[in-house]
Amino acid sequence: MASESGKLWGGRFVGAVDPIMEKFNSSIAYDRHLWEVDVQGSKAYSRGLEKAGLLTKAEMDQILHGLDKVAEEWAQGTFKLNPNDEDIHTANERRLKELIGETAGKLHTGRSRNDQVVTDLRLWMRQNCSKLSALLWELIRTMVDRAEAERDVLFPGYTHLQRAQPIRWSHWILSHAVALTRDSERLLEVQKRVNVLPLGSGAIAGNPLGVDRELLRAELNFGAITLNSMDATSERDFVAEFLFWASLCMTHLSRMAEDLILYGTKEFSFVQLSDAYSTGSSLMPQKKNPDSLELIRSKAGRVFGRCSGLLMTLKGLPSTYNKDLQEDKEAVFEVSDTMSAVLQVATGVISTLQIHRDNMARALSPDMLATDLAYYLVRKGMPFRQAHEASGKAVFMAETKGVALNQLSLKDLQAISPLFLGDVSRVWDYGHSVEQYAALGGTARSSVDWQIGQVRALLRAQQA
Amino acid sequence: MASESGKLWGGRFVGAVDPIMEKFNSSIAYDRHLWEVDVQGSKAYSRGLEKAGLLTKAEMDQILHGLDKVAEEWAQGTFKLNPNDEDIHTANERRLKELIGETAGKLHTGRSRNDQVVTDLRLWMRQNCSKLSALLWELIRTMVDRAEAERDVLFPGYTHLQRAQPIRWSHWILSHAVALTRDSERLLEVQKRVNVLPLGSGAIAGNPLGVDRELLRAELNFGAITLNSMDATSERDFVAEFLFWASLCMTHLSRMAEDLILYGTKEFSFVQLSDAYSTGSSLMPQKKNPDSLELIRSKAGRVFGRCSGLLMTLKGLPSTYNKDLQEDKEAVFEVSDTMSAVLQVATGVISTLQIHRDNMARALSPDMLATDLAYYLVRKGMPFRQAHEASGKAVFMAETKGVALNQLSLKDLQAISPLFLGDVSRVWDYGHSVEQYAALGGTARSSVDWQIGQVRALLRAQQA
Amino acid sequence: MASESGKLWGGRFVGAVDPIMEKFNSSIAYDRHLWEVDVQGSKAYSRGLEKAGLLTKAEMDQILHGLDKVAEEWAQGTFKLNPNDEDIHTANERRLKELIGETAGKLHTGRSRNDQVVTDLRLWMRQNCSKLSALLWELIRTMVDRAEAERDVLFPGYTHLQRAQPIRWSHWILSHAVALTRDSERLLEVQKRVNVLPLGSGAIAGNPLGVDRELLRAELNFGAITLNSMDATSERDFVAEFLFWASLCMTHLSRMAEDLILYGTKEFSFVQLSDAYSTGSSLMPQKKNPDSLELIRSKAGRVFGRCSGLLMTLKGLPSTYNKDLQEDKEAVFEVSDTMSAVLQVATGVISTLQIHRDNMARALSPDMLATDLAYYLVRKGMPFRQAHEASGKAVFMAETKGVALNQLSLKDLQAISPLFLGDVSRVWDYGHSVEQYAALGGTARSSVDWQIGQVRALLRAQQA
Amino acid sequence: MASESGKLWGGRFVGAVDPIMEKFNSSIAYDRHLWEVDVQGSKAYSRGLEKAGLLTKAEMDQILHGLDKVAEEWAQGTFKLNPNDEDIHTANERRLKELIGETAGKLHTGRSRNDQVVTDLRLWMRQNCSKLSALLWELIRTMVDRAEAERDVLFPGYTHLQRAQPIRWSHWILSHAVALTRDSERLLEVQKRVNVLPLGSGAIAGNPLGVDRELLRAELNFGAITLNSMDATSERDFVAEFLFWASLCMTHLSRMAEDLILYGTKEFSFVQLSDAYSTGSSLMPQKKNPDSLELIRSKAGRVFGRCSGLLMTLKGLPSTYNKDLQEDKEAVFEVSDTMSAVLQVATGVISTLQIHRDNMARALSPDMLATDLAYYLVRKGMPFRQAHEASGKAVFMAETKGVALNQLSLKDLQAISPLFLGDVSRVWDYGHSVEQYAALGGTARSSVDWQIGQVRALLRAQQA
Repeated sequence: MASESGKLWGGRFVGAVDPIMEKFNSSIAYDRHLWEVDVQGSKAYSRGLEKAGLLTKAEMDQILHGLDKVAEEWAQGTFKLNPNDEDIHTANERRLKELIGETAGKLHTGRSRNDQVVTDLRLWMRQNCSKLSALLWELIRTMVDRAEAERDVLFPGYTHLQRAQPIRWSHWILSHAVALTRDSERLLEVQKRVNVLPLGSGAIAGNPLGVDRELLRAELNFGAITLNSMDATSERDFVAEFLFWASLCMTHLSRMAEDLILYGTKEFSFVQLSDAYSTGSSLMPQKKNPDSLELIRSKAGRVFGRCSGLLMTLKGLPSTYNKDLQEDKEAVFEVSDTMSAVLQVATGVISTLQIHRDNMARALSPDMLATDLAYYLVRKGMPFRQAHEASGKAVFMAETKGVALNQLSLKDLQAISPLFLGDVSRVWDYGHSVEQYAALGGTARSSVDWQIGQVRALLRAQQA
Repeated sequence: MASESGKLWGGRFVGAVDPIMEKFNSSIAYDRHLWEVDVQGSKAYSRGLEKAGLLTKAEMDQILHGLDKVAEEWAQGTFKLNPNDEDIHTANERRLKELIGETAGKLHTGRSRNDQVVTDLRLWMRQNCSKLSALLWELIRTMVDRAEAERDVLFPGYTHLQRAQPIRWSHWILSHAVALTRDSERLLEVQKRVNVLPLGSGAIAGNPLGVDRELLRAELNFGAITLNSMDATSERDFVAEFLFWASLCMTHLSRMAEDLILYGTKEFSFVQLSDAYSTGSSLMPQKKNPDSLELIRSKAGRVFGRCSGLLMTLKGLPSTYNKDLQEDKEAVFEVSDTMSAVLQVATGVISTLQIHRDNMARALSPDMLATDLAYYLVRKGMPFRQAHEASGKAVFMAETKGVALNQLSLKDLQAISPLFLGDVSRVWDYGHSVEQYAALGGTARSSVDWQIGQVRALLRAQQA
Repeated sequence: MASESGKLWGGRFVGAVDPIMEKFNSSIAYDRHLWEVDVQGSKAYSRGLEKAGLLTKAEMDQILHGLDKVAEEWAQGTFKLNPNDEDIHTANERRLKELIGETAGKLHTGRSRNDQVVTDLRLWMRQNCSKLSALLWELIRTMVDRAEAERDVLFPGYTHLQRAQPIRWSHWILSHAVALTRDSERLLEVQKRVNVLPLGSGAIAGNPLGVDRELLRAELNFGAITLNSMDATSERDFVAEFLFWASLCMTHLSRMAEDLILYGTKEFSFVQLSDAYSTGSSLMPQKKNPDSLELIRSKAGRVFGRCSGLLMTLKGLPSTYNKDLQEDKEAVFEVSDTMSAVLQVATGVISTLQIHRDNMARALSPDMLATDLAYYLVRKGMPFRQAHEASGKAVFMAETKGVALNQLSLKDLQAISPLFLGDVSRVWDYGHSVEQYAALGGTARSSVDWQIGQVRALLRAQQA
Repeated sequence: MASESGKLWGGRFVGAVDPIMEKFNSSIAYDRHLWEVDVQGSKAYSRGLEKAGLLTKAEMDQILHGLDKVAEEWAQGTFKLNPNDEDIHTANERRLKELIGETAGKLHTGRSRNDQVVTDLRLWMRQNCSKLSALLWELIRTMVDRAEAERDVLFPGYTHLQRAQPIRWSHWILSHAVALTRDSERLLEVQKRVNVLPLGSGAIAGNPLGVDRELLRAELNFGAITLNSMDATSERDFVAEFLFWASLCMTHLSRMAEDLILYGTKEFSFVQLSDAYSTGSSLMPQKKNPDSLELIRSKAGRVFGRCSGLLMTLKGLPSTYNKDLQEDKEAVFEVSDTMSAVLQVATGVISTLQIHRDNMARALSPDMLATDLAYYLVRKGMPFRQAHEASGKAVFMAETKGVALNQLSLKDLQAISPLFLGDVSRVWDYGHSVEQYAALGGTARSSVDWQIGQVRALLRAQQA
């Protein structure tokens, strides 16, 4: 009889279970990560049962004490799983019973694995979101500090990977930091929706024994309680949101990694990765490969895969709990680990990166000032469209003559437009160029300083 | 010469363009949807130029007047595209020039298509988010009204698609309505991030002509301005977020549709779709198919496809603007249209659905009260695990005897546990059963009323 | 110095490695699964080196012997990893050197980890494809055997989940078996493209030492050699194809699982899962849940997630080897394990499933013969469209009168069409109905037999 | 009454249809693309009906003639849709009836829209696969021709985007061409599975009127017939396969585009896009952007989105036809159009691309020969691992001294290993370097020629 082997559903099943099925069904290999929150949830629930009169004070104390012992065993690595422990909930309750006897059997009163497991997962994720927020803030802070320190370095800004206009190196750093501030904002929103208590929802219909869910909420420090028991036990929006949050954040990190891989090529030679974040080649002794950045880039795919996989699984379900939902945990654990590693590696990469200022400066060329040349004419009163066309003609003329744009003579330029005067020479100064872009968000020094201030203020606000 | 054909990049290109390439490159077929917001953005920008001294008051008035005329032509369907109008921005500016002459050429001063297009898209999406919010609220309201009206109908609650416990029909409705309130909450958050002004970011480096972005923000009623010009012109987080929002919302609607398709089978016979939302078979005269629900279900895949497609495109990009970003608009337009149709059809389905109360009642069976039987013992002091096992034995005994669970005699039950007494007969009342689940979120009438109140309060808060 | 720690890239790096980066970079935790094929590949390569004159016969023998010893240690579980073994290739070569000394350093001559790792992966996958093919054939065979045995059981065929026409239960089984034959056909095609030798491609440029790739191919029993060394070391089409193969196969199994979950509801009651493939509820003693089927269904999402994740990673890469490709192996291993488990569980489910013939028969109803009623008129000469309409009127009349379709009197029917005569009564026989569908692929007994024959012939052909 | 509006399901429905629902349900906006194959399928089916005795020869001729007239109207653009034509099948049959009267009502005998629509789609896709194959072959041929012509151009091969070893430019071209040959091989396999006849499967149970499916197959020139009517009408494997085929092919084209975008940057300056495939900037007159390549890259995401969207839709379905399947067509049409455009644009890009041989040559540097330096030592008898380390030391020494690797004196080198002799100078010749890689698949001229021959032979075989 199955009940003898201690399975939760007790006295009814006859017939053996396919061992492959058993392994397939078992989640203990990964949900053991939940040991601590499972104990935490059970402690709160036993307090709820006591208040509802379903446990005496003495029974509650016995259970609380036993649960502390269970937690201690996990913490010290002495907890022994046994082959029938199919999941962490079964394992902990089985052990509790060994430690305190039949009273343990009262703990599950009015509770279902359906509300228990989702409570555990929310508790775990709430904590994890805080950890990831801290790592993300650390990365952003590192970037902002670096942006502040290297504010005076100029290099080419690219669009379509073609050299476009001179910009500050800090402007580039901040463009990625700003993207990450959206991720940290979103993570707080996800965490807000994670931080809702489902305990007291039972399997589907709710809790029939007068358990006070407000008390459970307060015990476990949740921000709110779920509104509907059917929804509470089977919705995994917070998991999907978290996985999508990670996917979008990884997209940002992947794009930054892509930039740095390019900037670190021999051809660009703007940056050099620290040895701590590079590896060599088993065949080519001269090579130093940006493996850290490539791994960041690749993880974006992996994380998105988890998001799309879970969404496909959720999409095909009828309402309420179905075993398919068991897929949620491995996705969360893997993606959390990946994000933690990626954020730390990215922080390490950014903080140890060397930049080659000379190469950056050398990469600026007069044709990147063609837009400024047009603005010169605009300032003399020419409509922009004509100025753009005139500047285009100058570029074409320089190409045809085989000279740099700033080497066209004043006469050459005047053949294009009589508005060109001697003061056009001031256009060819890169430092002067960037300082023009003083509108908020631009690449002028004042605007970069403003950005630094804004991002720092955001971080302070988010941490509050 | 390309410049003669009036292409934006003017006087430099020689050589013809591959016609397939031209079509491939052109976006006017779909971005014409942006005509109104493009005019709106240009009007604000011309005010910014005037304030910055780049337009005289007269020029500004001329441009504003011309833009109004352009808008009027679009509104009246008299705007004529010409073959060189590769996108809506080119088309509108070309027409403006025809209407007001060379002054039109001043409008693009300091602006790039990079910041123009993303401003347009944000304006369009802001408006669209409001429309979708209203449709979503309408659906939720319809569901809550129905839940309130049919609060006394009981039927089986399922987990794993197996009959689990008796619940209120309204509890089922509310389980889906509650899921949708999370979607409406998320949509507001997405809209908040949509509602940020990028105009004044130029192509990459910012705006060099002293345009006051605070003025542009106020003119266009944005909530904030973007912080970094490189990021502003190339980030599409708000698009990805919107597409994911739609994917998750569709997952909810698909799961609800799946439930209703099941409940509408001959075998369940709990509900019947209105003829307005069913179609017949070209071969089988007796059939009435739930096409509306199947289409809702299928659109979840389509919408997710757009989300995953865009994310894959974004993931592979280096920073700043790349032409790949042109994929954003078709995704947004298609998904917006789909969401609008789906939300309206879902509202229609829910509001015209017939329910078969008798069938619902008939589907309740005593074995669904096995958990209540265990709770009976729990109330008599038996630990839940033993009570669960005892109730399991009763189920097994009834199966063995071939009788319903409530037809076991008291003697039978007492053979399992002496705690069973005459009052066990009260367990077999479905109405009594559901009323036990009075903890918040449960299926008792009081709790269902509480849910209705909570959802209504949420809607009021969100609409504020 | 890094070289002292024995890293492959030897004598150049200075500076420490971030421990998180090291863990991030390391693949030994999963690529140890490749130990056997890595040894196999190295043995073949040492033969190639000997033939090319880069190893003496004695050196080759020493290496071969050493590699056998390495393999033996793995097989017996005595192989000891050391902390610097970042991947299986490093580990095996490190151990070889310990066993045979400096000669081990000759093994990598002209080889790169780039061609080594992809050779290993192809060897592993080739073997794995054979295993999965066998499991898939076993499942199909089980289904066909069952279809043959239960050929005379009739039950409702559904479209849109609405009862449509009577069909044979075997016809349903075969509809899924036939889908799976496409999967087994596709798997053979994937395996054909897996079975191509990349060894001898070096890191990018090829092999410069005259290694005979034909010899390597023959040694390792590959079907062909890769054509281009740049492509060979960095293409992962065969991985993407395998993951997609698995995704599509899982889609089929998920749809079958979905059908069986429905057929196993109380409402349908057509089938009952063996206890070996069900589990109970921790709260509801009466429940028996189809966990095996739900897990199959959920794995479809997970497997697709891996496919989409890898594709996103591949999509964003420039050509040749990039570290991002390291993501390939975990995807392959996880999906292979999942497929293996799912195929076995599905075989177990199908072979132990009980069917309830009486319920199946009871679920047939006269309205499902409405199409046959139309065909009756067609056979009397009425155009189908009119006949369909006439039959629709009969359905409507029966509904209005509240009787079953076959209880309309001849007079009733004649009011609809004078073509109805006394022989219309034969229409109401379900056995007669199915036998009409005798065209190939239909549900008549002869056609079902033909299908069984076809599938068996396919299996024989594929196994050949 | 709905029957008056001529809806296919005739005389039963009462009640109006929601106009949004009607639009949602209607597919005529896109499935009109199927007009030709729909007529083709109906002609074959009417021949099948005649042979089965369900049409007289005269009726068949009348139908065939009418269908030709319908086709003619479509071809000439004179076909008039009417508001009740919800799909192409309804439209064509409605028009047939107008043209030939009641006999038209016999055409649908024993046929269902379920088998009709999937037959149409397969016919359309079969034709489309041939078109795409031809375009793909044209692209590959263009690449191979170019590879042959520019065989003597050397440039850097990269791994991890770091310069690795000198290779032939043709070797790079062929690396992409070889990838595309796998796509063309796969497309033929997909087409084989597209080319299977489902007609004669009815809605679910098969065809009850003795229609000879072998005759239908022969009439429509299909390669085989479907085996099971339930599967035939609802499986869309061939669509999923096609979409995945396109996704993988686009991944290849995206990676090639990515390479070319990099090679076309100012920093690399290896290639220059023809003006026909570039566009300018609305703001920066000097810019020429690789829009064609960026669009190719972006379409990879879009196409994959369609694949993942359809797969998610399919995954959530129970077996047999569900309306959800209506999503298949838009996906197929859009992806087909995209592939056609992309393949042609890619061919145009490759055939008009300019290469800068001098820049390519200049980008080769002595450190790229470090592996060859190690091979030099290997040829002198040193084990590769030691040689790799020795070469690494040389690289480090050159870096430390600030000289190029080939500028180390013999004495310097001999300090590293006494095996270095005067003949080491031959290592520093790039032409000599590439010629070493003569194993099949390598970058030596003989091997590149072999590759060209192999790809040409493959194309010939595939076209046969």
